[in-house]
Amino acid sequence: MSGAAGSVALVGAGPGDPNLLTVKARRRLDEADVILHDALVTPELLGTCPDSAEIVDVGKRPNSNGGRLTQAEINRLLVRATRGGRDVVRLKGGDPYVFGRGGEEAEFLAAAGVDVEVVPGLTSAVTAPAVAGIPVTHRDHASCLTVVTGHEDPTKAESALDWAALADTVAAGGTLVVLMGVGRLPETVATLRDHEVAADTPVAMVEKATWDAEYTLTGTLSTIVERAVDVGIEPPAVTVVGDVVDVRERVIDASQSVPARECADGTAGRLRSDGGSR
Amino acid sequence: MSGAAGSVALVGAGPGDPNLLTVKARRRLDEADVILHDALVTPELLGTCPDSAEIVDVGKRPNSNGGRLTQAEINRLLVRATRGGRDVVRLKGGDPYVFGRGGEEAEFLAAAGVDVEVVPGLTSAVTAPAVAGIPVTHRDHASCLTVVTGHEDPTKAESALDWAALADTVAAGGTLVVLMGVGRLPETVATLRDHEVAADTPVAMVEKATWDAEYTLTGTLSTIVERAVDVGIEPPAVTVVGDVVDVRERVIDASQSVPARECADGTAGRLRSDGGSR
Repeated sequence: MSGAAGSVALVGAGPGDPNLLTVKARRRLDEADVILHDALVTPELLGTCPDSAEIVDVGKRPNSNGGRLTQAEINRLLVRATRGGRDVVRLKGGDPYVFGRGGEEAEFLAAAGVDVEVVPGLTSAVTAPAVAGIPVTHRDHASCLTVVTGHEDPTKAESALDWAALADTVAAGGTLVVLMGVGRLPETVATLRDHEVAADTPVAMVEKATWDAEYTLTGTLSTIVERAVDVGIEPPAVTVVGDVVDVRERVIDASQSVPARECADGTAGRLRSDGGSR
Repeated sequence: MSGAAGSVALVGAGPGDPNLLTVKARRRLDEADVILHDALVTPELLGTCPDSAEIVDVGKRPNSNGGRLTQAEINRLLVRATRGGRDVVRLKGGDPYVFGRGGEEAEFLAAAGVDVEVVPGLTSAVTAPAVAGIPVTHRDHASCLTVVTGHEDPTKAESALDWAALADTVAAGGTLVVLMGVGRLPETVATLRDHEVAADTPVAMVEKATWDAEYTLTGTLSTIVERAVDVGIEPPAVTVVGDVVDVRERVIDASQSVPARECADGTAGRLRSDGGSR
């Protein structure tokens, strides 16, 4: 990771709790000269980075036009940061290769002759449900896990996703995880219902998993939209659709519930995060 | 994690390299009184566990009938191990909640009144492709990731998976990852072809990701079965189906190839694992 050429490590920050970094990610951060991070990386995690490192928030940094940096600008910034042989960490919330544009950055850096290393991180697609007590697969409930982003409008004809197929995997008992899907939750739910996924299919939303403000809301395809509005679910949140959501009651309620924020009907509570520090 | 009642931490070991444990998993292992582990946990990782811990291989341990321990026997063993207030780690390859039966164990322990904590790990569904240079999602190639086990026979009518739907997600450009699918590779490939997934769809198999013997093989739906036989791919291996496989050439070939084992046609090489120690 040293030498005149410099290098970039694409490092997954995991869901937010610094204890859920990998040992290797921790080491890369501790030794970095420059750290370029996304908006999803928590202040708590950044607080554990060395004072000697230059820390750049490319998730919010304005470009010369006053807008947010484009991906092309971030790519060029990464290459420039390596000049003088500096060890650069590109720190991404979750895993760099799960909806993190890490693939595009790795391709650009490789083409530019910069040495690239990928240090995987915990993806919130699996970890956010887990810390809320939900296993994304289960021998009795789900043999299939599907992960999509909620950024796309499922009602648009040009959606890159085959929603009929996604609905079929859920109807067959599989688990569907939607990342970053708070804004389009109503469209996503309506699309699944249009494709005949049962109205009573369990749904959970895990907001800010492993952060201090972690919050879990449960419901069904017929109730989750209204409940999410009622309690004011905000991004970032992970949405889980499938029978595995019900496992949560048997795990969490028996061993680890610390209710704080409750719906009127008692269906949601703020829980101790298993991802949290001890 | 202490006290007379004892506790069980369901800890994900990640793909094998001890550096890819989380900081929290590392701490749980370092402080454990008893560690019960699966067959997929590497000797290298076990070698980093404290000498003071009792280490039990429940993946191979025989039961009273001379067979392997059943899940029910493992569940009871976990409860017994906590007696006297001992801190027990249940160490699972990958993530405990991704095809790891962690959900079942958490339910059993919670019902038995044992305090359970889940410490997520890197799932090989994402990490094995990543260390081989393959991002499971990519803005230009894949907006959907589906993960299944290869243990089920896709040609059987009672398969819990909707293979028509799975095929449709791949045909729409999504990525399909099959865990533990070496044995049934021919059936899986034939089923995808029967459901009209294109013969030239790229496929990669990553054997023993992040282990010393890591090996990556690439091909297409029409060639992978024969190639896997030619080079003798053995479990554990992760199979990746989708256009993202081709990203590997642009990332790995430019920056990090260290060929060792090659097919006659030069399509496969042993690569430096990004997951490996430095």
